[in-house]
Amino acid sequence: IMSKGTVVLAYSGGLDTSCILVWLKEQGYDVIAYLANIGQDEDFEAARKKAESLGAKKIFIEDLRKEFVEDFIWPSVQANAVYEDRYLMGTAIARPCIARRQVEIARKEGAQFVSHGATGKGNDQIRFELTCYALYPEVKIIAPWRIPEFYNRFRGRKDLMEYAQSQAPPDLYLMTKNPADSPNEPDVLEMEFRNGVPIKVTNETNGISKNAPLEIFSYLNEIGGKHGVGRIDIVENRFIGMKSRGIYETPGGTILLKAHLDIETFTMDKEVRRIKQGLGIKFSELVYNGFWYSPECDFVRHCIAKSQENVEGKVQLSVFKGQVYILGRESPKSLYNEELVSMDVQGDYDPCDASGFIRINAVRLREHHRLQGFSGKKQ
Amino acid sequence: IMSKGTVVLAYSGGLDTSCILVWLKEQGYDVIAYLANIGQDEDFEAARKKAESLGAKKIFIEDLRKEFVEDFIWPSVQANAVYEDRYLMGTAIARPCIARRQVEIARKEGAQFVSHGATGKGNDQIRFELTCYALYPEVKIIAPWRIPEFYNRFRGRKDLMEYAQSQAPPDLYLMTKNPADSPNEPDVLEMEFRNGVPIKVTNETNGISKNAPLEIFSYLNEIGGKHGVGRIDIVENRFIGMKSRGIYETPGGTILLKAHLDIETFTMDKEVRRIKQGLGIKFSELVYNGFWYSPECDFVRHCIAKSQENVEGKVQLSVFKGQVYILGRESPKSLYNEELVSMDVQGDYDPCDASGFIRINAVRLREHHRLQGFSGKKQ
Amino acid sequence: IMSKGTVVLAYSGGLDTSCILVWLKEQGYDVIAYLANIGQDEDFEAARKKAESLGAKKIFIEDLRKEFVEDFIWPSVQANAVYEDRYLMGTAIARPCIARRQVEIARKEGAQFVSHGATGKGNDQIRFELTCYALYPEVKIIAPWRIPEFYNRFRGRKDLMEYAQSQAPPDLYLMTKNPADSPNEPDVLEMEFRNGVPIKVTNETNGISKNAPLEIFSYLNEIGGKHGVGRIDIVENRFIGMKSRGIYETPGGTILLKAHLDIETFTMDKEVRRIKQGLGIKFSELVYNGFWYSPECDFVRHCIAKSQENVEGKVQLSVFKGQVYILGRESPKSLYNEELVSMDVQGDYDPCDASGFIRINAVRLREHHRLQGFSGKKQ
Amino acid sequence: IMSKGTVVLAYSGGLDTSCILVWLKEQGYDVIAYLANIGQDEDFEAARKKAESLGAKKIFIEDLRKEFVEDFIWPSVQANAVYEDRYLMGTAIARPCIARRQVEIARKEGAQFVSHGATGKGNDQIRFELTCYALYPEVKIIAPWRIPEFYNRFRGRKDLMEYAQSQAPPDLYLMTKNPADSPNEPDVLEMEFRNGVPIKVTNETNGISKNAPLEIFSYLNEIGGKHGVGRIDIVENRFIGMKSRGIYETPGGTILLKAHLDIETFTMDKEVRRIKQGLGIKFSELVYNGFWYSPECDFVRHCIAKSQENVEGKVQLSVFKGQVYILGRESPKSLYNEELVSMDVQGDYDPCDASGFIRINAVRLREHHRLQGFSGKKQ
Repeated sequence: IMSKGTVVLAYSGGLDTSCILVWLKEQGYDVIAYLANIGQDEDFEAARKKAESLGAKKIFIEDLRKEFVEDFIWPSVQANAVYEDRYLMGTAIARPCIARRQVEIARKEGAQFVSHGATGKGNDQIRFELTCYALYPEVKIIAPWRIPEFYNRFRGRKDLMEYAQSQAPPDLYLMTKNPADSPNEPDVLEMEFRNGVPIKVTNETNGISKNAPLEIFSYLNEIGGKHGVGRIDIVENRFIGMKSRGIYETPGGTILLKAHLDIETFTMDKEVRRIKQGLGIKFSELVYNGFWYSPECDFVRHCIAKSQENVEGKVQLSVFKGQVYILGRESPKSLYNEELVSMDVQGDYDPCDASGFIRINAVRLREHHRLQGFSGKKQ
Repeated sequence: IMSKGTVVLAYSGGLDTSCILVWLKEQGYDVIAYLANIGQDEDFEAARKKAESLGAKKIFIEDLRKEFVEDFIWPSVQANAVYEDRYLMGTAIARPCIARRQVEIARKEGAQFVSHGATGKGNDQIRFELTCYALYPEVKIIAPWRIPEFYNRFRGRKDLMEYAQSQAPPDLYLMTKNPADSPNEPDVLEMEFRNGVPIKVTNETNGISKNAPLEIFSYLNEIGGKHGVGRIDIVENRFIGMKSRGIYETPGGTILLKAHLDIETFTMDKEVRRIKQGLGIKFSELVYNGFWYSPECDFVRHCIAKSQENVEGKVQLSVFKGQVYILGRESPKSLYNEELVSMDVQGDYDPCDASGFIRINAVRLREHHRLQGFSGKKQ
Repeated sequence: IMSKGTVVLAYSGGLDTSCILVWLKEQGYDVIAYLANIGQDEDFEAARKKAESLGAKKIFIEDLRKEFVEDFIWPSVQANAVYEDRYLMGTAIARPCIARRQVEIARKEGAQFVSHGATGKGNDQIRFELTCYALYPEVKIIAPWRIPEFYNRFRGRKDLMEYAQSQAPPDLYLMTKNPADSPNEPDVLEMEFRNGVPIKVTNETNGISKNAPLEIFSYLNEIGGKHGVGRIDIVENRFIGMKSRGIYETPGGTILLKAHLDIETFTMDKEVRRIKQGLGIKFSELVYNGFWYSPECDFVRHCIAKSQENVEGKVQLSVFKGQVYILGRESPKSLYNEELVSMDVQGDYDPCDASGFIRINAVRLREHHRLQGFSGKKQ
Repeated sequence: IMSKGTVVLAYSGGLDTSCILVWLKEQGYDVIAYLANIGQDEDFEAARKKAESLGAKKIFIEDLRKEFVEDFIWPSVQANAVYEDRYLMGTAIARPCIARRQVEIARKEGAQFVSHGATGKGNDQIRFELTCYALYPEVKIIAPWRIPEFYNRFRGRKDLMEYAQSQAPPDLYLMTKNPADSPNEPDVLEMEFRNGVPIKVTNETNGISKNAPLEIFSYLNEIGGKHGVGRIDIVENRFIGMKSRGIYETPGGTILLKAHLDIETFTMDKEVRRIKQGLGIKFSELVYNGFWYSPECDFVRHCIAKSQENVEGKVQLSVFKGQVYILGRESPKSLYNEELVSMDVQGDYDPCDASGFIRINAVRLREHHRLQGFSGKKQ
């Protein structure tokens, strides 16, 4: 029988993508199974064997952990990326990372098709496919959960799997301890930043120190997880216009966000910060919606990276019972000027100037008040 | 001796404004002492006696707690007001409330002057004075901490007072317990909202319930304080362009922010939310900078209030060890549609539409990729 | 033969929608032809006869001119609606107006289907259909130019028709004279606004005056057309991500935009204006993309309308050789204060205050300069 | 008599700054007169003699025309800089250019003081002084029009001078012909851009061509002036909160704005354009308010420059009777794809995708409609 061509399938080792693997073969495709390791808890060798046994022509198990941290998480830290004020977008950031390698494999292996197990109502299908189209415009995408023959046949199982996730049982969380059961002693960390990304973390309690990106991030996940940091239960707005409930845990990301916010405000000019805050919100929307690889996201990332040039210094923080408390910060590039702000040093600052500043700011307000009793104007 | 006129002084009962009261009299003014009760822990009768003994011509002690909650805190809740991503602006919101009444008293008493004890490098002088100018454009403001004869004479004492505040000792916090010492059992609350403001709070642990604005807010402060919620240590950017360190506690405000964010996202259209988020940031900057009474803040408040018409429903949350955890929410006006979002009900939604949606979104991205190998275009 | 149901077709009387009418009947539908009169130059009676002869079951010719001006153009005037800095969106605004009535007819006539002649690459299909879905969520839409059986059969003809429009011959413009051939004498108009919309226009040259919305708008089209105002040749970005060339003429709209901008800046607070400018840009994007009937566009329109409460007064302008020149303006509600701004009256304004204002604004800039030679900071 | 020090005065040669020069000497300063040539029509040698005769210690006449165009006008062209939708900010851009050199001279000559003739109610004082403080933080600024001894003595003369400018007589305009008197034949130009700035202009009517920045800009001023392009009569909002009337002519700037807008939209991705449009508005506000030299304006300029990397190509335009008409454009880097947008080529684009795109965009709108008849939701 003639092959319809080769498809690179983003394979998880689970029931879901295993069904897809088999179904794609049934449809006449040669299937390359691709497993991305972005740090999830997974038995990759077992998954390899399973893919082999299901008839995968080739299997790629790719360790993307380092590039995930450096190329995707670090720019998100610089951006203070948060979607709709709460969601730290761990999943949203992972998709372009996974799809980027999948497309590289497809090109290298001469595959015209890629496939994935994302559902037809979610965000991941979009994040996945926009990345593929952006990096491999001619690619053809097979999304079984949007193909009636597939989903009518397998829907029952999917329902079951989804069902498990639609609830929020106490043991839903994999990375984080319940804060009620977390240690009664904090961990106190010092995080050092340069260019708006962490270059070192030191646990002041026990002297443990990490300075490679992946190690830093893993350690923050460990510490955050130990203290139950970063659990949220939210309703969010999907790109396709539905509201959905999401329960997330982002222990390391939460520590990073708090620490970065602090060192950033300490070192960045106030008005640059305002503009950058707007760009960060834009970045978050773009990433959530799947546009990591887009001209506008490139542009925004470039601008944000530029804003981080002086975001440098150390933040001391305590992690305890689900919370991150900032204890202090220092920086060689801070705009904080103790003398300027101090009451007991007048220095260069003349308090009388503030009177003029206030009165000029009030010109408009006083006019506004006066003109509530209107009279004709002409010009 | 001829009086220079009457001045209404925002009097706190402390050493600072007591010095000002005496100095204003020395300068030849009749002084009306005005104490605003916005919920702070204060012995108002002792303050009255002190003001009398220092020679105040009249004394007004005004209970502004109810109007502070209804007119100032509630609109801030609707706005999700946070300055620079972290500061909930308790102080910033109080200033226009206090100054508004001060101006009313000045008008009623025929006083041409108002005075206050805010320093010459801070934000409060601006918030205070812009409110006065906006509501009483002809008023004359005496700001002793910007007058050399005053501050050169009293600087020593001020230094002392400020010194106490420039440190962050463990007992700096007045309203909140240290989370390490807080109860090992959470309080579980249900908060009911209408028009984006709370109309009822019920403690599900003990059945206590409050439904008047001031009572609700006080109760949230109590519960938040008990569990150590809302402590922050930040560096912020003052309006006048300095960075300064601030240590704040906002227990009730923090619970309100988390609960409101949740019910808002649950009930508000996604795109309205995006626009409203921008208006909320604008609102926060305006309020922080002292422009509560300004045409633009009026305008923004009006728009935000409009956005809250359907922000209605109940939020369940747990308060524990410095954190607020959202447990669930319900609303008669939610846009959350369980069937629409569910995997096991296709209903009106056709997953195939998502393919078209994604491909159209990719048109631009694919063109962009294609045109990296440029060729001439003419039109 | 059993009917598949009734479809309300947006019929233009032209070849294009005539083909669709016949094809829909061939497919087994009862067809109601609906012609909207929004002011275009059309022989509606001839169109009615043609629709009858082609077998339309019913024909509705609806004069929407008044509601088009009042409900769609006036809010766009308030918004200073311009897409991508140049396009005044005459077409974009017309679509929701036309589709709104079409949906009303469909509901009244019990029709489950609506149809239109917009192409599959353009914006109009989106504007049309989003309106239908928003106002009649259960409606089924038949878009023949997206149905292969239809477009493969008729594409040839379409090509021909499109071809005529893809060029820009000198006689492409229907409403406006070539400025080179326009009169050598200007028309001088006085336009009176209230709530940000015109309530009267007077031609000062000949005394002609109009004060009903439709008459005002028609007269501005006439005068603008006579002087060649409002022609543009642009490349624009369609919602679906393509760039396309557009050649437009908007004579009346251009005069309205210039006059409204002038009276608005004259009467609106500076900071309200800034916020409203952002909302106007948002409004323009929404309307261009077809979201007139959406929660966010409702919200933005409400906010913009609020901002217009004091936009009131008269603007004098001259229309000449393709240009609109503002000559002056007057208003009972202007914030322009001749005395305040005058050099020869000091009044309430103390120039010395400006020194303080500038120095405080410079605090941040001087710190920034100073800290380019960095030294460690800690807090 | 002991000198109070040396002051560098921005000297114009006119009555106004001549009075200041003399007054500064009277006050005991050594005065260095500094004349900036930014292209204004001025007899610089006469001005030099006048300054000498008035007692200037030294005189600097500096030709800043080239750097004005390259360092200030070109970035403004990239930004499409327009304040409040209408004002092209010729003056606002000139101030930091002039003050920058003034500060260089002051540093070189060891002068601790700078001075200028800007009034106490205007924007120019702010633009001038913020530049000085930003580039020379220790400088002392003498602004005579804010010093009572000076302005009380000279106000009469100032009134007279200002009076002349507060009117708008037909001969107010210096650079532009009245469009009524302008040629009856257009000039047709081709402008070539690279990195968002013009690199060549060719007059297609007569073959004249310019390719150095200053020559290009001067030529555009000449052609624009000849055809009466760029006259406006507006009321604007000054930074200090007053509204003021301004009558401006910006012939070359207007042509540049129109041409740049066109080539930019032709070559820039739609979503990059949206973000960049917001940055351009921010840039305009910053520049208008005097913050050219500020961290945030540096940042915004950097981002805008980044966005211009592919803004490259040629624009054909006609200049006639006060108007600029775009005739066409071409670019090696355009995202305009004739095939993609064409009706007669389907190519890679499947019109059916648009159905899915629209339906997904409608999900939210239909839900919104449905839920106007609310029912309880819980999650």
